[in-house]
Amino acid sequence: MSRKATVSAPSNIAFIKYWGARDLDRAIPTNASLSMTLDICRTTTTVEVLDEAGADAIQIKSDDGALTPAAGAFNERFTAHLGRLREHLGFTGRIQAATHNTFPSDAGIASSASGFTALAYAVSAAFDRVDSPEEMSIRARLSGSGSAARSTFGGYVTWPSDPHNPESPAAQHAGPHIDLRDVIALVQHGPKDVSSLEGHRRAATSPHFATRQERLPERTRRVSAALTSGDFAAFTEALEEEAIELHLVAMSSTPPILYWEPGTLEVIHRVRQLRTRDGVPCAFTMDAGANVHVICPPTSEDAVAAAVSDLPSVHGVIRDRVGSGPRHETEHLF
Amino acid sequence: MSRKATVSAPSNIAFIKYWGARDLDRAIPTNASLSMTLDICRTTTTVEVLDEAGADAIQIKSDDGALTPAAGAFNERFTAHLGRLREHLGFTGRIQAATHNTFPSDAGIASSASGFTALAYAVSAAFDRVDSPEEMSIRARLSGSGSAARSTFGGYVTWPSDPHNPESPAAQHAGPHIDLRDVIALVQHGPKDVSSLEGHRRAATSPHFATRQERLPERTRRVSAALTSGDFAAFTEALEEEAIELHLVAMSSTPPILYWEPGTLEVIHRVRQLRTRDGVPCAFTMDAGANVHVICPPTSEDAVAAAVSDLPSVHGVIRDRVGSGPRHETEHLF
Repeated sequence: MSRKATVSAPSNIAFIKYWGARDLDRAIPTNASLSMTLDICRTTTTVEVLDEAGADAIQIKSDDGALTPAAGAFNERFTAHLGRLREHLGFTGRIQAATHNTFPSDAGIASSASGFTALAYAVSAAFDRVDSPEEMSIRARLSGSGSAARSTFGGYVTWPSDPHNPESPAAQHAGPHIDLRDVIALVQHGPKDVSSLEGHRRAATSPHFATRQERLPERTRRVSAALTSGDFAAFTEALEEEAIELHLVAMSSTPPILYWEPGTLEVIHRVRQLRTRDGVPCAFTMDAGANVHVICPPTSEDAVAAAVSDLPSVHGVIRDRVGSGPRHETEHLF
Repeated sequence: MSRKATVSAPSNIAFIKYWGARDLDRAIPTNASLSMTLDICRTTTTVEVLDEAGADAIQIKSDDGALTPAAGAFNERFTAHLGRLREHLGFTGRIQAATHNTFPSDAGIASSASGFTALAYAVSAAFDRVDSPEEMSIRARLSGSGSAARSTFGGYVTWPSDPHNPESPAAQHAGPHIDLRDVIALVQHGPKDVSSLEGHRRAATSPHFATRQERLPERTRRVSAALTSGDFAAFTEALEEEAIELHLVAMSSTPPILYWEPGTLEVIHRVRQLRTRDGVPCAFTMDAGANVHVICPPTSEDAVAAAVSDLPSVHGVIRDRVGSGPRHETEHLF
């Protein structure tokens, strides 16, 4: 049995968003979601198992290699995930872990998907218990982060919502051979005001939530079909409709949640202009935050990156692409 | 019979918005609306009747006094309104008119409410046919601009939507003794991309339009009650809910309409911060455009004006207040 393991896991960007839960503690979603697994935005986590009593300890590794003990809400959620993994896998022993993100942690890129997936894999790897991506999807979701359930597969991933099988894992919808790019325009400064967890809690208070539920299956079919057929115009229409609707529901919740920043609209208007005036295929989407993910075919990537980089509110751009899921790393973080 | 008359008429800001029509040509609204008549933002119009054949002629008077013939869509709508007034009042004679706005015409402040109300009054005055504000509301609405129906009263004005009496005029809900201010933050450059008329046309294509219709009566009652009782916190909640919902419907129409600019969100976030962090009562609303109207009690006006003036995207601020309706002017524009 290996006692130390390091795994890196990707983040993902949802084309159809998880927003609202039947059971928030267990991350049982009200609706099915569909995402693209990213390649560059990843979390790397090293886990070491010590056969001794004591509390688990988690450290965060910065870009310059410094290790800092995790604190606050992050530490609590991480520790809680470790506790549930311990119960699920039936292991004993004290865990030392360290974790590192490839993307700026204060930039408003959701790190819970990659972070909790990497932890589930690293712990499982340390006990030689890495299983199928379906089983790993369930373990990642034990964190309470629903989007983590989708990061155990590469390519394009669906995560169903089936009241009769509430614990259903995610599944791969299409492989990474469908080459889409994600130019992430960073416009958010600092962490968002309202957490996604709190957003899920408020979702059903929106008077527009029910209409959203009714329309999601049809919209999900349109996104799936457009991905498979390569009809980027149809994809664009469905993707942007969904991105806007997620925020409509958030903004009409009680109390209202306004994730958008001025820069969000600056990027949105630029994307619409790029497409309609300059004929560059590209489509915007936003997670529960202010940053804008511009999804595009490879031939548009340079033009999109150049256009959004020039905007005054954009303080950084990450050029990402569809990726291939979690992987073992040979170099440990400590 | 006087042959020349000058009237100025106010614009208004809707607290509950007119959005969607049973009959767009006749401006028969799908829902009742409620507005505050403004004091400073006005249109002054002079009409002269000539007993001769020939086409009507409309000129626009600029701030420096220059008169320019009206052109394009503005001229068409103005001329069409004159034609309907002619039919409604049964008059003959060629009309010469000139019109002037107190507010920058390119700033995204709706000038149709004040403009068409002023025209209806000026023509009626030239024929000594000025009638009750109710009858004048019907004449102003002949323009096809629904919001004009609300500018014939001072104070706070309701415009009903009654399928059995589709032509119902507006009525005063409360007088201008309820002293509210409107600090208008100008963030829009140039005219908006999609006209309000086109917005009304698309409104019912939004999947969220039906839910909006269901909820409007209750929200209207909340705004009315809060106005009367002076409960500004309750007013704020209902006003902002409505402002956001109007734009939710626009953004989820087919094709989507995004009136918001980056500056819209900059002002919205500042207003929320002013209220929650600095304890300054104030509430935002937007018409079908990017500019933000910050409604507040008189004691908040200075703080609001100072705060929004400092924002980088705000290129101008108009400090307006509840006003008292159209009035005859002794000085003609030509």
